[in-house]
Amino acid sequence: MNIELIAIGDEVLYGMVVNSNAAFIAHALLEAGFLVSRHSTVGDDPVALRKALHAALLRKSCVITTGGLGPTCDDHTRAAIAEIFNVPLKHNSEVHAYIKSIFGSVKSIDNQATLPVGAEILQNPLGTASGLYLKNERLYPESFLIALPGVPSEMREMVKTGLIPYLKAKLPVGKRLFVLPLHFMKLCEVDVDHHLHEIEKECPAIECGIYPGLGVLSVQLKAFAHDEEEFLEIVTIYKERLSEKFRAHLFDSPSGRLDEAVHRYFLERKLSLALAESCTGGSLAGRFCAYSGASSYFRGSIVAYSNEIKTGLLHVSEKTLESKGAVSIEVTEEMAKGVAKEMKAQCSVAVSGILGPTGGTADKPVGTICASLYLEGASIHSWQMNHIGNREMILEKTIQNILAELLTFLVKHR
Amino acid sequence: MNIELIAIGDEVLYGMVVNSNAAFIAHALLEAGFLVSRHSTVGDDPVALRKALHAALLRKSCVITTGGLGPTCDDHTRAAIAEIFNVPLKHNSEVHAYIKSIFGSVKSIDNQATLPVGAEILQNPLGTASGLYLKNERLYPESFLIALPGVPSEMREMVKTGLIPYLKAKLPVGKRLFVLPLHFMKLCEVDVDHHLHEIEKECPAIECGIYPGLGVLSVQLKAFAHDEEEFLEIVTIYKERLSEKFRAHLFDSPSGRLDEAVHRYFLERKLSLALAESCTGGSLAGRFCAYSGASSYFRGSIVAYSNEIKTGLLHVSEKTLESKGAVSIEVTEEMAKGVAKEMKAQCSVAVSGILGPTGGTADKPVGTICASLYLEGASIHSWQMNHIGNREMILEKTIQNILAELLTFLVKHR
Repeated sequence: MNIELIAIGDEVLYGMVVNSNAAFIAHALLEAGFLVSRHSTVGDDPVALRKALHAALLRKSCVITTGGLGPTCDDHTRAAIAEIFNVPLKHNSEVHAYIKSIFGSVKSIDNQATLPVGAEILQNPLGTASGLYLKNERLYPESFLIALPGVPSEMREMVKTGLIPYLKAKLPVGKRLFVLPLHFMKLCEVDVDHHLHEIEKECPAIECGIYPGLGVLSVQLKAFAHDEEEFLEIVTIYKERLSEKFRAHLFDSPSGRLDEAVHRYFLERKLSLALAESCTGGSLAGRFCAYSGASSYFRGSIVAYSNEIKTGLLHVSEKTLESKGAVSIEVTEEMAKGVAKEMKAQCSVAVSGILGPTGGTADKPVGTICASLYLEGASIHSWQMNHIGNREMILEKTIQNILAELLTFLVKHR
Repeated sequence: MNIELIAIGDEVLYGMVVNSNAAFIAHALLEAGFLVSRHSTVGDDPVALRKALHAALLRKSCVITTGGLGPTCDDHTRAAIAEIFNVPLKHNSEVHAYIKSIFGSVKSIDNQATLPVGAEILQNPLGTASGLYLKNERLYPESFLIALPGVPSEMREMVKTGLIPYLKAKLPVGKRLFVLPLHFMKLCEVDVDHHLHEIEKECPAIECGIYPGLGVLSVQLKAFAHDEEEFLEIVTIYKERLSEKFRAHLFDSPSGRLDEAVHRYFLERKLSLALAESCTGGSLAGRFCAYSGASSYFRGSIVAYSNEIKTGLLHVSEKTLESKGAVSIEVTEEMAKGVAKEMKAQCSVAVSGILGPTGGTADKPVGTICASLYLEGASIHSWQMNHIGNREMILEKTIQNILAELLTFLVKHR
């Protein structure tokens, strides 16, 4: 049986609101062993809504809608459902009593308790819009419909406590899909792709996915299994093969974020860290401070946007600045040493560059970034990057590149 | 003509990634005068993809797809398009040359230059996946298809520079929807709601929208008109009424972001700014440095995550730290003065607090944040915030609150 999600509302259709409801439901269902086959979004237009519902129900589907169950003039879901299931709307005194018991005598209570006859009710503990379950053997013999409210907090609670137990009782749960993610830095899709093809060929039960992010490549090994043990039996040798093949690129982070992996590295080893940032302007420091516990290793950052601060607080020599320019390996080396000394840190990172769109020269075009890593007892490591893109992209590529170099450098030297 | 958006990819279908592309495109089209009629999402399944494309093209539509244009085994969009338009895939040497000119001889270049015959190319300046435009008068006489890459940064750039000019040339633009946004800080929905109802009652041509964000409330006045002049004739008196009513809350930012409004304020007045950040850990500095031109006023930030740096670099007295604690108005006042002096800035901001989830006490629970604003020649302004939420939310609320206070303070004192 198909599972189709339909989001209802002009605010979603016209992009004022991102449809995060679909992702939440799809992911919750995936984890429960159900695969969604399609999402759609339609606006607050009764005709378009009825058409979309009717077409989905004809596809032998469990159709799950979100939105349009509120009490205002642009909420059409209950009426549309009643129409396509060919039943009247009628006041339901039990639902009325339930809403009143939780929310008191709210103005919209009569409206919210008026529901398609024959609908089973999925209670909403957080709001006045009840969820609905409808089936009609004659009109849609192999389908059924579940309507949920669109307010994310209400919908999420009802998915966990109502929808998923409901589907588990209604639909056969056999094997479910398990997913094993692996995260790599400094790798491209094409580096990994043919290895995944080989895995899929050797073991047709496994499906591979590649998800490139900025500076990060995530690979997923997916397979259907009855439980985690069975799944691990299928994927473990391939996981180990990929880990072995790309050992220098693999990083460990539940979220798949490189900043989290670097944060965990510093946290576990209690290695103190300080930053000297020019072009990244505090954003690199922000990546560490986003994680709880950073205060146990992160000393601080000097954001030196002006040259005066580079020479003053970071002790960069005026001679180096003049002869090499602010964007140079010589300057970032002095910045890295300066901030490590000033903040008494064992490790430091310095970065200076041109994010654009202005400030580039023939010699050093927009996207030229220099960085240095200092580690107590090891030699300093410096390099130059040349990124393309707009300001936001160059900043993000710079941060990802520094995080990857830093992790590689630390693993090598400690 | 309908406009339908189809997102392609298992990662979207199964909820690993939220489909923010649909919202971006729908909103960009809305602003350009085109209304989207439906979004869908399908997975990396060639059969489901072809079915969805075919069905959408039969609905007299401009179909816009995102995703599946990459070079790997789970990218099926080019093949699916070729199949439903009944044309072969063929290597395109012009596209090959274009990709090579920007990205060099990347490994995937042959694959990425193999495209459906007859497709017009929408160049992608930020990636190797070209956009495609296809039409077939015989198969789908009243429809056409535009395929865009799924990587958000690439897609966004191509929507602005490629898709929208393209649609304006292809589709009739009659009366289109114009939107006038107004952005307010320190306001709630209920403060504004009844004023908007009044406007809608007085002038039925106007539809109002309220979009609350973290720390920001955006209001939209929307109306259909032939051109901007006609639109402004309709909305101007209501815009002025709202601006007058909420003058102290209004801020000026094309993006609706408070950080942009503050950036513009400093940029225009060439007022120099320095920051001393404890709990925000560089993120506040990052908000300014995200904007080109920040270097003309932004001096830098000292991210003082440890007390030693507060006393050393920021000259906070050890006595104050000990008697009042790091999270206190007395400490942020000394931080603000210290960084202004150290960085020779006319204006400075200091912040210190507990983002959690650990570190709270009975006296100063998680969410307790102190901040100070210093302005040359004015008295220092300090206040305490008490935010609730998780670490990420408390950080964002803190940043928004500081930006709002800073803008209000500057407008009042200068």
